[in-house]
Amino acid sequence: MPHLTTEWGNPSSAYKFGAKVKSVIETARAQVAELIGAQTREVIFTSCATESNNAAIHAALKANPNKRHIITSAVEHSSVLNYCMALEKDGYRVTYLPVDRDGLLKLADLENTIGNETSVVSLMWANNETGVLFPVKEIAEICRSRGVLYHCDAVQVAGKIEMDVRKLPIDYLSLTGHKFHAPKGIGALYIRRKTLFSPLIHGGHQEHNLRGGTESVPLIVGIGKAAELARKHLPHYDQKVRPLRDALEEGILQLIPNTELNGHKTQRLANTTNITFRGIESGALLILLDKEGICASSGSACLADSDEPSHVLKAMKPESAASRQMIRLSLAQETKEAEIPQAIAAIKTATGMLRI
Amino acid sequence: MPHLTTEWGNPSSAYKFGAKVKSVIETARAQVAELIGAQTREVIFTSCATESNNAAIHAALKANPNKRHIITSAVEHSSVLNYCMALEKDGYRVTYLPVDRDGLLKLADLENTIGNETSVVSLMWANNETGVLFPVKEIAEICRSRGVLYHCDAVQVAGKIEMDVRKLPIDYLSLTGHKFHAPKGIGALYIRRKTLFSPLIHGGHQEHNLRGGTESVPLIVGIGKAAELARKHLPHYDQKVRPLRDALEEGILQLIPNTELNGHKTQRLANTTNITFRGIESGALLILLDKEGICASSGSACLADSDEPSHVLKAMKPESAASRQMIRLSLAQETKEAEIPQAIAAIKTATGMLRI
Repeated sequence: MPHLTTEWGNPSSAYKFGAKVKSVIETARAQVAELIGAQTREVIFTSCATESNNAAIHAALKANPNKRHIITSAVEHSSVLNYCMALEKDGYRVTYLPVDRDGLLKLADLENTIGNETSVVSLMWANNETGVLFPVKEIAEICRSRGVLYHCDAVQVAGKIEMDVRKLPIDYLSLTGHKFHAPKGIGALYIRRKTLFSPLIHGGHQEHNLRGGTESVPLIVGIGKAAELARKHLPHYDQKVRPLRDALEEGILQLIPNTELNGHKTQRLANTTNITFRGIESGALLILLDKEGICASSGSACLADSDEPSHVLKAMKPESAASRQMIRLSLAQETKEAEIPQAIAAIKTATGMLRI
Repeated sequence: MPHLTTEWGNPSSAYKFGAKVKSVIETARAQVAELIGAQTREVIFTSCATESNNAAIHAALKANPNKRHIITSAVEHSSVLNYCMALEKDGYRVTYLPVDRDGLLKLADLENTIGNETSVVSLMWANNETGVLFPVKEIAEICRSRGVLYHCDAVQVAGKIEMDVRKLPIDYLSLTGHKFHAPKGIGALYIRRKTLFSPLIHGGHQEHNLRGGTESVPLIVGIGKAAELARKHLPHYDQKVRPLRDALEEGILQLIPNTELNGHKTQRLANTTNITFRGIESGALLILLDKEGICASSGSACLADSDEPSHVLKAMKPESAASRQMIRLSLAQETKEAEIPQAIAAIKTATGMLRI
């Protein structure tokens, strides 16, 4: 609050009124760094995960100007996929690794695809539609051993799984505040010390010359505090959320016919479930659930206005690609036990209405 | 406030809790559009002016992939200059137009420099260090008549001068919220209808597919309200601020020896004054003024940690480039008449101490 009201000085200014704001930015940077085991100076603030993802890939390509091959997967977030598609128009070659029916990657595919031309591998930690986890440690080690930069979109993971970049040879790692209860409009990018970085947004000397633009002090303070809280709650997160998610998921799969889980049963975040309801159009189901106060989605919010089927489901189960018949439900630490049977009952009622 | 507390839904979500937030974004977009005479759909939100400036130049170059010449001036903001320098490394040719001792541009220079290879002209409306105004209407008309895209960095002008893009053939125009009392971390970019635009930040479907990233709803609401207030106060701005600025400026120039105004006397914003104090190092003067509660700067805050002399002063007065001997003072509508003699006295005392 003070940084939205009285303490509005420009942190880059020479005078005290601005300079005192500079220290709160560095406190927030340390808080975010601690969440991922990074050194403070390895973290820069961005405006969102989309910017972090674009900036990391951009930097990796600039670090290796003669290598023009990028490896990613078919199930990445649109901020990676759409940027890669734009880069294809600029003459880069992109490999989109496939996933199996459970949403898992074959590491042999990655190993076989890396070549002398490969500049960067961008593979997410957890999928935003299914929660499926990629084997980040193995991916990072393959990239390191082959001399290829590795960018990891870890947006879904923050506050849900322990992250420690000291144990993982990841070069760039993207985060965004609103996935762990900070305000929307602030992201972060981890850049391993000594990894080359060229800015995506060129301007003043902010963020160690790596990201121009006057710092959004209130949001930076917000992501710092949220990171501190996420770290505090992390040891209890899984045991709090996973049983509720499992109860919700099993209730739906058992009580509602023609349903199917999307994504690997266990290699998955504790809070996400993605379920196909055969014969039911997602949009109609979401409207009925919304009336009951249940906020669900049929994929990424970033693409929610799209009529196209989810690219993630399409990659996992090509036969399900003709229409959207799935919904994603996400839980949080704030989810109460009593809400689980309520949600199951509401979904059962809604699907019953739509199937008559 | 509600968008930082209870109304935190994702505006791109399908459910009501998110969808109701979508409408406040569109209200803010209309408020910003009205400030510059634009249609609502011609405005997108960005994270800052630096992003807006980069994005506009990037889009113009993408619109004309075969033209690789950019024209700008030697006194632009670092977000234009540093981006242009990065583009030079990518094979673009950049002309940095000179200014005269008053900070003014020669339009003949612009006309003579535009060639068949020229893709975009990026020239600011008002300079951030001196307040000097460029003849935007004439620049825009020259660009239009020569078939070259025109980007205008209008960051310093918002709320201080009437802007109406219906009367000016500007293609892209950059704004940032904190220059008219919105929170830091939110900018806007005007893109004239039918002007080609390729995103700088690729991601989801936000901002009509022109700028990916989850919308920062609280800051967007903030820039909308600030634009509405700026528009309301605009008719009285000049008559309120200019007499105070003139009194401050004349007081300093008359009472303190070896001082000199930087920037044209009249072709200038009403709120800025930039004065050289010969023989005095800016840094020392700023520290003394800071103790008296006067927040001044020796150039752009974005480059405040730099030891280099101001590139703006260097372009205007090459002989003054050896050291920083100038300060910039900015006023606002909130500045009180009684503060003017106080500031003059404090500056007189400080310069007296430094010259003994």
